[in-house]
Amino acid sequence: MGETLETIRKAIRSNEWTRPTAGHAEGYVQTNLVILRKPLAFDFLLFCQRNEKACPVLDVTDAGSYIPALSAPEADLRTDVPKYRVYENGVLTSERNDIKDLWEDEFVAFLLGCSFTFEKALMDYGIPVRHIEENVNVPMYHTNLPCHESGIFKGNMVVSMRPIPAKDLAKAVQITARSTKSHGAPVHIGNPESIGIKNVSSPDFGDAVTIKEGEVPVFWACGVTPQAAAIASRPDLMITHAPGHMFITSLKDTDVTI
Amino acid sequence: MGETLETIRKAIRSNEWTRPTAGHAEGYVQTNLVILRKPLAFDFLLFCQRNEKACPVLDVTDAGSYIPALSAPEADLRTDVPKYRVYENGVLTSERNDIKDLWEDEFVAFLLGCSFTFEKALMDYGIPVRHIEENVNVPMYHTNLPCHESGIFKGNMVVSMRPIPAKDLAKAVQITARSTKSHGAPVHIGNPESIGIKNVSSPDFGDAVTIKEGEVPVFWACGVTPQAAAIASRPDLMITHAPGHMFITSLKDTDVTI
Repeated sequence: MGETLETIRKAIRSNEWTRPTAGHAEGYVQTNLVILRKPLAFDFLLFCQRNEKACPVLDVTDAGSYIPALSAPEADLRTDVPKYRVYENGVLTSERNDIKDLWEDEFVAFLLGCSFTFEKALMDYGIPVRHIEENVNVPMYHTNLPCHESGIFKGNMVVSMRPIPAKDLAKAVQITARSTKSHGAPVHIGNPESIGIKNVSSPDFGDAVTIKEGEVPVFWACGVTPQAAAIASRPDLMITHAPGHMFITSLKDTDVTI
Repeated sequence: MGETLETIRKAIRSNEWTRPTAGHAEGYVQTNLVILRKPLAFDFLLFCQRNEKACPVLDVTDAGSYIPALSAPEADLRTDVPKYRVYENGVLTSERNDIKDLWEDEFVAFLLGCSFTFEKALMDYGIPVRHIEENVNVPMYHTNLPCHESGIFKGNMVVSMRPIPAKDLAKAVQITARSTKSHGAPVHIGNPESIGIKNVSSPDFGDAVTIKEGEVPVFWACGVTPQAAAIASRPDLMITHAPGHMFITSLKDTDVTI
């Protein structure tokens, strides 16, 4: 828990660390990673821009560069993610701890904000985050909320759910609204069916969590959305982080809140 | 002043209206326009993403489409701007009232937020906007604040200045911070020299305005920034709106504040 950014990045780079990153290098922004070849980069960046709640862009590399110059200039995106996934034509073909031998001059890497930033903010304000309390993955669901299309990229929004005590709802909205690079304010509060979720205790990804008496299910746009849209479009080659095995930037949470 | 959106758009489309748009179709978001060919579109979109205070992206058309599907699906970007400017290799070669005969399948149009949205918000809260009071253009300045580069696009930030009474400074920051698609919070308050502005009464673009006793010059990122960066990069062909002759979207100011 008490690792410095330098220590944990070095451990990840040397493949000593291949575990999930949640709760580590606290205070530093963690991100989702999507790598595509240049010919798809404009349409994907535009997909993110058109659906920015689900796909908050934190940094995009210049074609061929594995250095995220704005968010972590001393990092190397070929080695500094604990676990990568390689998709060919939309099919997961391998998991690896580095992608040095796969790197191409045409690669463009997208770093997209994740929910860790706003979860820490919620907890700082004393609002419980159930899946962290229960030590499981956040529950995620397909919805009937269509994303704006861009080129080959399309799909419905995927959302994550956190049960929030009714008395804290307004506070939870205000706190997360400030984290615009971390999905921002909720997309829906209260009625799962109205966004196409039939059974909130049976998530499509992640794990179910307890909803206690007096709590309301609150739904936020989820970073799985762009990855799902990218996979569905079946690009020749796409590389992502493995779920939970995020890239840790050199940005502090406070850098992306204001 | 009391025109409906429909009336003013029809007048602009038929070239009856070729005047500036400030203060008209009140409540609707107006935007800057930059049109480039597809091969430059990714780098320009990324320039905007990397410098989002100066270049807030409101809508980007699919290549070849002149319909801004998300911000004004019933509009036509070939005709619905009162005055266009055509730049070839970075040189202004003509001004026109429509660009129907110039349109190409490779064109991508970028609609970028402008300051009208936050100026209205300031006035709604009783904060004076001097250049509107004095009926001149907002004063704008080159700064020494470098933009993040993307491909051929680079340059320093251009800022606009509004004198704000010292007692209203905190309020002005809060009000404009909410307009993230309209340049957001100021980039600098108070000391022009520290951002490379030698003489605040001699702007690089627009007109000088009176700074009264007890007022502080406040600087916001300006939508001239992306246009200046694009011109400086000398693309074969670029089309923009003429200054002050904005595109009027179908979005309400409230749509882009939250």
